[in-house]
Amino acid sequence: MNDNARFHPDPSLDLVLVRHSQVSPELVWKAWTTPSLLMQWFCPKPWKVSDCKIDLRPGGRFWTVMESPAGEKSPGDACYLEVIENRRLVWTNTLLPGYRPKVLNAAGNGMDIFPFTAVIEIEPNGSGSTYTATVIHADEESRKKHEGMGFEIGWGLAFDQLVELMSTTKSS
Amino acid sequence: MNDNARFHPDPSLDLVLVRHSQVSPELVWKAWTTPSLLMQWFCPKPWKVSDCKIDLRPGGRFWTVMESPAGEKSPGDACYLEVIENRRLVWTNTLLPGYRPKVLNAAGNGMDIFPFTAVIEIEPNGSGSTYTATVIHADEESRKKHEGMGFEIGWGLAFDQLVELMSTTKSS
Repeated sequence: MNDNARFHPDPSLDLVLVRHSQVSPELVWKAWTTPSLLMQWFCPKPWKVSDCKIDLRPGGRFWTVMESPAGEKSPGDACYLEVIENRRLVWTNTLLPGYRPKVLNAAGNGMDIFPFTAVIEIEPNGSGSTYTATVIHADEESRKKHEGMGFEIGWGLAFDQLVELMSTTKSS
Repeated sequence: MNDNARFHPDPSLDLVLVRHSQVSPELVWKAWTTPSLLMQWFCPKPWKVSDCKIDLRPGGRFWTVMESPAGEKSPGDACYLEVIENRRLVWTNTLLPGYRPKVLNAAGNGMDIFPFTAVIEIEPNGSGSTYTATVIHADEESRKKHEGMGFEIGWGLAFDQLVELMSTTKSS
């Protein structure tokens, strides 16, 4: 995984969450890449993911619909950039499937309050793994906005849900 | 190359240039991925490419500076998405190196009048190759703007320059 040396987060522009857990790399990967599993952990409760489509290949679609307790739906369409099984998953909300540039902030495109790319890295660590989620922003303003919205808590709670879910799931 | 089935251009959004030539896939690839060669053909004369940097990997930098006969410089920073040697090269101007979203249309960012992703496909064809350049736009307005700027002529002239250059170059 020399590839991992590739990403050097810029503290002024990027946000990073690092977690160690007893969940194996294979199960973290499975949780990120299986719609029926992702829907159970990806969004901190009481919000939920009410729909998810995954076409797991570079250029493939990563589609989620987040839904508030009141039923307000927030759809998000993204594109996978790198798919390295059990190790690294990269996706961006700046592109639609097939690498098509997205018209950002268009009416009804509520999820795209700012463009970002997410790099999910998973490394074996003892009987579990180390999970690093890096979110790459265009500018400091976007990073601050995301931080202010509670990136650390939100992505942290979601990962706690992943750990809880996958701790009761057997490796396939 | 089942992968090639992946891109299905949308005529309302995409522009496609197809050319058959006697240049081998290896030499078309070399012309696209070697800065000293790319600088000689990438920009229709009398404009020229006065600087070029290539970091040939997904997430790597594709940097060019186009220069007008009057010396006006137009720098462009893009990011490679797929690098399949001698067959397919995908890059986008919507992302900076390391997949960082770009702030589009910012002051001084003259190249980015519209976001696009370029898919360069090269297929063996007899003793030469078939070259397909597909440019993927966000919306019909961008496609029309690019078409109006002379996509077909511009990309066509550039490819003519590539053919002329590589016809006198030996395969490495």
